[in-house]
Amino acid sequence: MKTLTTTHQISVRFSEVDSLGIVWHGHYISYFEEARETFGKQFGISYLDIKKEGFAVPIVKTATEHLRPLKYGEVMTVETTFINTRAAKIIFNYLIKNEVGDLVCKGETTQVFTSVDTGDMSLSNPEFFKEWKKKHHLLND
Amino acid sequence: MKTLTTTHQISVRFSEVDSLGIVWHGHYISYFEEARETFGKQFGISYLDIKKEGFAVPIVKTATEHLRPLKYGEVMTVETTFINTRAAKIIFNYLIKNEVGDLVCKGETTQVFTSVDTGDMSLSNPEFFKEWKKKHHLLND
Amino acid sequence: MKTLTTTHQISVRFSEVDSLGIVWHGHYISYFEEARETFGKQFGISYLDIKKEGFAVPIVKTATEHLRPLKYGEVMTVETTFINTRAAKIIFNYLIKNEVGDLVCKGETTQVFTSVDTGDMSLSNPEFFKEWKKKHHLLND
Amino acid sequence: MKTLTTTHQISVRFSEVDSLGIVWHGHYISYFEEARETFGKQFGISYLDIKKEGFAVPIVKTATEHLRPLKYGEVMTVETTFINTRAAKIIFNYLIKNEVGDLVCKGETTQVFTSVDTGDMSLSNPEFFKEWKKKHHLLND
Repeated sequence: MKTLTTTHQISVRFSEVDSLGIVWHGHYISYFEEARETFGKQFGISYLDIKKEGFAVPIVKTATEHLRPLKYGEVMTVETTFINTRAAKIIFNYLIKNEVGDLVCKGETTQVFTSVDTGDMSLSNPEFFKEWKKKHHLLND
Repeated sequence: MKTLTTTHQISVRFSEVDSLGIVWHGHYISYFEEARETFGKQFGISYLDIKKEGFAVPIVKTATEHLRPLKYGEVMTVETTFINTRAAKIIFNYLIKNEVGDLVCKGETTQVFTSVDTGDMSLSNPEFFKEWKKKHHLLND
Repeated sequence: MKTLTTTHQISVRFSEVDSLGIVWHGHYISYFEEARETFGKQFGISYLDIKKEGFAVPIVKTATEHLRPLKYGEVMTVETTFINTRAAKIIFNYLIKNEVGDLVCKGETTQVFTSVDTGDMSLSNPEFFKEWKKKHHLLND
Repeated sequence: MKTLTTTHQISVRFSEVDSLGIVWHGHYISYFEEARETFGKQFGISYLDIKKEGFAVPIVKTATEHLRPLKYGEVMTVETTFINTRAAKIIFNYLIKNEVGDLVCKGETTQVFTSVDTGDMSLSNPEFFKEWKKKHHLLND
């Protein structure tokens, strides 16, 4: 089975660095989102693509593990990998590395599908998502 | 003519302090907003009150002046004053003081009225706002 | 064994709400921090207390689970509970509830001790932390 | 006299869009900073360059004017122009345009020089800054 991965570079902003001189941990959630959108654009499954299908994909779970700090001036690379599952969920793994390739942060996010109109959560995968999986050889059977 | 003023206390969050050990300047815009909403709640002109009348009040102008730094652990007091004007605008002045009463930051914001439905900007004061001014003895004539 | 818990109230800021009209998920990390500092102040183990002992306590792990959305204007209550462990770590659990008591978000953070001077991580609990645990009847043996 | 200008592109992040579906006004302060650092890197006067000279350059004044909204998915261009002055200040003007070239936001920031060691503000231009101005044909007499 294929693995879909994208890489995305982000420069640390001055305002993201805390009084210890390192990126404040909460900003990694925002880095994941930025990287996830690069994935979405590359593979045709961005927030705007999904919205056109009548769905929002709110985050229901996040996890981060911080191994090394990042400082102001550093450029990170975020590797975003789609984790295939049968459930009506979108799961991504993230690996953030610094310029010399050291692992800085590992993370995972889980999203569900909700109807833009009703707000209701889909218990099964929406048609457009099944099509998307098919196109990328990710169907689970 | 009456002056409408409220005071609002905010504790500096750890994540708001930058690598120089002081509140990052951009966060003051957020402090103004928090203080403005305290004003809004006290005088019945909060975002939600205004939304019920069919209007949004986007910010079209901000100004800040920074006189002293704030550090993590400090509690600031924001004094928010409504600046009366004939124009179809909402103008507030802000004075932020530290715990010993020193002036930390001065600011001003300007908002206009836009229709929630059409997005169009009001060139004259909406009826509900005229009523609100009347009630608070702020009518300009 | 005693359980140490504090509760802390936070009003949703306008700038924390995303285009879906709900609090953007990344802000919960900041709510946890604000609530953790209320715990720290109440039990004498705030960032500033710890700094005086020569230590910083960077976050090495976070987890969030989102069960319900929060909207602008809502006031949340964060329950912060100290999770006792033998390891040289500070672990907190968080439960965020809305005004009618519904569970909105569950979370956990893990912190380690690093020397303010050298940046090195402590492999064993610092003396001041053992004293703190003793005082609060949390010693693990 | 020469004018120093740089342009810098920024994609709107999902978390930067508020419940009205537009970029929350406070984020423009962060866009200015990001653009200012692009200027700093291009012309050798970044935060890190200045720090090496023993100075910090805290913001003492900001002004923004908002003419059009930006939405999620849009890419903006920030034009940053150095405003030459005799005073011991760094002043920048910013013009933010959307993809079709419409003006979205105008802004200005003022910074002063403080000693990294003592925190004291310089009343005259530091030597390194005079050298920098000379190099770029910006000396005021």
